[in-house]
Amino acid sequence: MKKDIGKIPAIFPMPVLMIGTYDENGKVDVMNAAWGQVCDNDRIILSLTESHKTVKNIKLNKAFTVALADRVHVEAADYFGIVSGNNAEDKFERTGYHAVKSDKVNAPIIEEFPIVMECELAEIIDTESIYGIVGKILNTKVDESALSENGKVDVRKLDALMFDQFQSGYYTVGEKVATAWNAGLDLAKRNR
Amino acid sequence: MKKDIGKIPAIFPMPVLMIGTYDENGKVDVMNAAWGQVCDNDRIILSLTESHKTVKNIKLNKAFTVALADRVHVEAADYFGIVSGNNAEDKFERTGYHAVKSDKVNAPIIEEFPIVMECELAEIIDTESIYGIVGKILNTKVDESALSENGKVDVRKLDALMFDQFQSGYYTVGEKVATAWNAGLDLAKRNR
Repeated sequence: MKKDIGKIPAIFPMPVLMIGTYDENGKVDVMNAAWGQVCDNDRIILSLTESHKTVKNIKLNKAFTVALADRVHVEAADYFGIVSGNNAEDKFERTGYHAVKSDKVNAPIIEEFPIVMECELAEIIDTESIYGIVGKILNTKVDESALSENGKVDVRKLDALMFDQFQSGYYTVGEKVATAWNAGLDLAKRNR
Repeated sequence: MKKDIGKIPAIFPMPVLMIGTYDENGKVDVMNAAWGQVCDNDRIILSLTESHKTVKNIKLNKAFTVALADRVHVEAADYFGIVSGNNAEDKFERTGYHAVKSDKVNAPIIEEFPIVMECELAEIIDTESIYGIVGKILNTKVDESALSENGKVDVRKLDALMFDQFQSGYYTVGEKVATAWNAGLDLAKRNR
């Protein structure tokens, strides 16, 4: 029996994205964002409030990085969501984390996070229903320790966090249930 | 040490969204989509290829539902991603699943999936970098068995699947690591 619960945005899980930018003085800023998704093979879209320091920095540099936060870095990841770069000039330095400039775009890579996309600004979508930053992925960098023997990212090794917006929780990935384009094959064939 | 792996869209996890629509004859269609996200408190955006039957149906009815697939329904969820509604007129019927018309929008609710958003079409974003269907959430319905005592959705009870695009796997949610706007509070206060 289903119950009406109102206008609840019921997308689960959400990623825990760490968006890295430089400000006008070359200072590193990082923010925590959950409302981001792939929107094409080499594109991602981030829905951000325009007042964020990150948005100003992206407009300035036409570039940003997007990393995934992993379990061991949950404290800093959450901190990047609590404190605003508009109010704390030393926001990044407070964590003691380390940043290097990307060799692909004018944006910082935070060394502590295991995987990062280096993006240039493709477009800002600004309509009645959405304010979205679209990034073109130029390259992705990953810790070798997060790769499988087949050279692809292993999400169990990555140990990335996910966000539960219903109750504001961070979770880890659980067990593998099935392989896509495989689990439903019998059903597809049986009825052809 | 980080390794370059090219233009890999590295968002993890992704949701396993079941998009429900009616066609021109009132027949139910369901497709599986991973590239969807919340883009405002009552808005979601789905990046879909325009050729999908689902997109035609959404343009026709200006409405759709978005459910989350859970672990016990992984076979049908995957099947909804393998078979195209353009090629299989009985795509939905083949599963033996049950649909009822939403009381909020002209779109079907699939009874087997535990939570569903009832959406009207807000806008189609069609630019050089994105083709996105933006939905306005009018209401969300959830199985009472997925609710906590506080009346909010419990993601452990929901048992929703997530998608790993790196290696095309479906996973379940793991353990809770921390509470958001809390895990980073000490770090925020310590350095104020």
